[in-house]
Amino acid sequence: MQTIDRYFEDYGLGEVRRSVGRTITEADIVLHAGQTGDFFPHHMDAEWTATQPFGQRIAHGTLILSVAVGMTAGDINPQSMSYGYDRIRFIEPVFIGDTITVEASIAEKADHPKRPLTHGYLHEKVTVTNQRGAVVLVLTHLYLVNRRP
Amino acid sequence: MQTIDRYFEDYGLGEVRRSVGRTITEADIVLHAGQTGDFFPHHMDAEWTATQPFGQRIAHGTLILSVAVGMTAGDINPQSMSYGYDRIRFIEPVFIGDTITVEASIAEKADHPKRPLTHGYLHEKVTVTNQRGAVVLVLTHLYLVNRRP
Amino acid sequence: MQTIDRYFEDYGLGEVRRSVGRTITEADIVLHAGQTGDFFPHHMDAEWTATQPFGQRIAHGTLILSVAVGMTAGDINPQSMSYGYDRIRFIEPVFIGDTITVEASIAEKADHPKRPLTHGYLHEKVTVTNQRGAVVLVLTHLYLVNRRP
Amino acid sequence: MQTIDRYFEDYGLGEVRRSVGRTITEADIVLHAGQTGDFFPHHMDAEWTATQPFGQRIAHGTLILSVAVGMTAGDINPQSMSYGYDRIRFIEPVFIGDTITVEASIAEKADHPKRPLTHGYLHEKVTVTNQRGAVVLVLTHLYLVNRRP
Amino acid sequence: MQTIDRYFEDYGLGEVRRSVGRTITEADIVLHAGQTGDFFPHHMDAEWTATQPFGQRIAHGTLILSVAVGMTAGDINPQSMSYGYDRIRFIEPVFIGDTITVEASIAEKADHPKRPLTHGYLHEKVTVTNQRGAVVLVLTHLYLVNRRP
Amino acid sequence: MQTIDRYFEDYGLGEVRRSVGRTITEADIVLHAGQTGDFFPHHMDAEWTATQPFGQRIAHGTLILSVAVGMTAGDINPQSMSYGYDRIRFIEPVFIGDTITVEASIAEKADHPKRPLTHGYLHEKVTVTNQRGAVVLVLTHLYLVNRRP
Repeated sequence: MQTIDRYFEDYGLGEVRRSVGRTITEADIVLHAGQTGDFFPHHMDAEWTATQPFGQRIAHGTLILSVAVGMTAGDINPQSMSYGYDRIRFIEPVFIGDTITVEASIAEKADHPKRPLTHGYLHEKVTVTNQRGAVVLVLTHLYLVNRRP
Repeated sequence: MQTIDRYFEDYGLGEVRRSVGRTITEADIVLHAGQTGDFFPHHMDAEWTATQPFGQRIAHGTLILSVAVGMTAGDINPQSMSYGYDRIRFIEPVFIGDTITVEASIAEKADHPKRPLTHGYLHEKVTVTNQRGAVVLVLTHLYLVNRRP
Repeated sequence: MQTIDRYFEDYGLGEVRRSVGRTITEADIVLHAGQTGDFFPHHMDAEWTATQPFGQRIAHGTLILSVAVGMTAGDINPQSMSYGYDRIRFIEPVFIGDTITVEASIAEKADHPKRPLTHGYLHEKVTVTNQRGAVVLVLTHLYLVNRRP
Repeated sequence: MQTIDRYFEDYGLGEVRRSVGRTITEADIVLHAGQTGDFFPHHMDAEWTATQPFGQRIAHGTLILSVAVGMTAGDINPQSMSYGYDRIRFIEPVFIGDTITVEASIAEKADHPKRPLTHGYLHEKVTVTNQRGAVVLVLTHLYLVNRRP
Repeated sequence: MQTIDRYFEDYGLGEVRRSVGRTITEADIVLHAGQTGDFFPHHMDAEWTATQPFGQRIAHGTLILSVAVGMTAGDINPQSMSYGYDRIRFIEPVFIGDTITVEASIAEKADHPKRPLTHGYLHEKVTVTNQRGAVVLVLTHLYLVNRRP
Repeated sequence: MQTIDRYFEDYGLGEVRRSVGRTITEADIVLHAGQTGDFFPHHMDAEWTATQPFGQRIAHGTLILSVAVGMTAGDINPQSMSYGYDRIRFIEPVFIGDTITVEASIAEKADHPKRPLTHGYLHEKVTVTNQRGAVVLVLTHLYLVNRRP
């Protein structure tokens, strides 16, 4: 983790970052239930889920979201501020033992409507894929970035 | 936590749920860094953040999001499936020791475009407020819900 | 989780609550050892326990007790105060991967000896069962409850 | 932690063990909520508890119970098996920052009714005290112990 | 855990302590990644490690080191102070499910160069072995110990 | 975190990496006790440590060591393998709330005695400093690195 100043002008449309992989474990789910208080049987009950369509426990959506966003937190950029996400969609369930990788690409650059000379908006499309190549989660990460002074 | 069947017709527009409060602790942030791998100094370095505008460490956005969504996970409804979120916006930072409460209200009901007789979409507006009454996070939670057969 | 006032008069003898299931994981045992400092090989050493009668690691008694009591913590009742437990008995071991469910029934109602007009005692029998239908733990949860004013 | 064979005859009535101290932290409460799923505001909401009689968050009963029992798990005795607890009473609340110590004394020895030649029952009285000298929790820990062959 | 005063003179060269066993779990690795921020795929990615020479995830070196040193933390000796380690060598990888035991022997006793009448140095050789009898880690634990007054 | 091949020839003697800061929290100590089983009162008992020379709880040595090494785990280098540490010395205690930063510099490069054409040894000196500028821990991290083919 290092600190690198990158300005709005420094980001190229379509620029892509790719993460290494991370296996989602039973421990991750237990810890996420513990952090959020969500002990729904979909995540915690191996017996009941064995009788359901997916046949097994599935990871919390917010777990995959949190881990995926964390996996894109690489360099620290003091010129950029994350302010939200758009269009988070859980496409496929993530099971215990699945390994996810994350790709983040600059999907949109837009001038700040009121401060176009000093700020711009970056939209980074985040795509989370499992070891079978299936997309499990997509979201758009929103940043407000300073222009080069 | 109990299992209660609620169908699309059973949800009233504007219907509101309110949570009890939960204090966001230093331990929550440490655990969330540990779960996500995001050890950015904004969350982890009390010395450096003391020199920054907010003057102290702030909670990860995904921590508040995960906890808030977890705080709305009340009854289990087998007729409803969460499939994503829209327009997540981090309005104010959450500091160590802040106490959040969550309000969730049915903001929109829509027919499923292809299966209007059997399914509908629910949009639940989730609003997270701190102990000073300031809104810190908003998001729209998206559900696909079965109609009464 | 919601707050609902229930008075001593509102509890019926024999009234029963049933939880959903929860699978006890290796992570739960590791976390419980970490919380309590009990790293006895009965819980932590797969090699040694393979040579013992049960043939595998077993969950800490206090883990199953804590989880089971937690699984009965549903609605918040400001009129009721938990003050202890009686006759906790570990009937069968719980193994990694076992799924427990909890049943809690009002087994006894008694007047408070000194304040019979304002308070009563509730004894809730808590029974923890595994996926094979075997009872693994029983205990009596003791509450002091306000009478309706 | 060492393994030492002690038989029923080796335990003296009134024999006492005393632990070192352990401070109960906010992190302990957060972790215990996470393990048990009990996020009651009594333990988690600093704002609301500030308006209540105790004026602050209190530790879960099962946390203090689990930690106290763990603090008495010293030597491993293959001749002894823990099978339950009697009369667990929460006498005083434990607050964040309180330091507890545990004393365990052999309060009762009894022959096994059906196998008096080979087994006996030990009742160990466990007393948990805070840094102000107040008793916060008592319980009786029940063991089935082999007689010397 | 008990407090016992042992002076420099009380330690015999070659004196040996042996621990019980502890199985290193997937949860331990997940928790250690979370504590240290080291999410290298060698520890976290089951898919990628399956393509590497070891064929599976391996425990962090600092995890095995920390657990092994913890397993030797038996009695508290107020006359002794740990001040460092020498020659830590990771000999073999530790995999999920491996069970380690620790042996610690007094390998060297030396007078304190400037205060030989009051202090001495103890070097304790720590050897960590897995269930197949292979040594996985060695280190020398360094103590400064008071002489008997 | 990215994967970058660096060969023995690519490392310059004296080359330095510096981390951002991380505050060591009470939660870190609680989690480390939980991972290692070391609940010594030096780390866990605020009352007793208040009577001791340092006046407060101190972090486990292995906690600071593990976190510091983790803070130097930046890019993944497939050409390099960590095989041990030398001369770990705990110079000053780390207290709850202290913020550490880590500096790692290439202190020594040496040919592999038997395979000098293909491998070399790197010694990286790791220095951990607190917010008062005091060095709290030093160690030498040992790597076996491939030469450029």
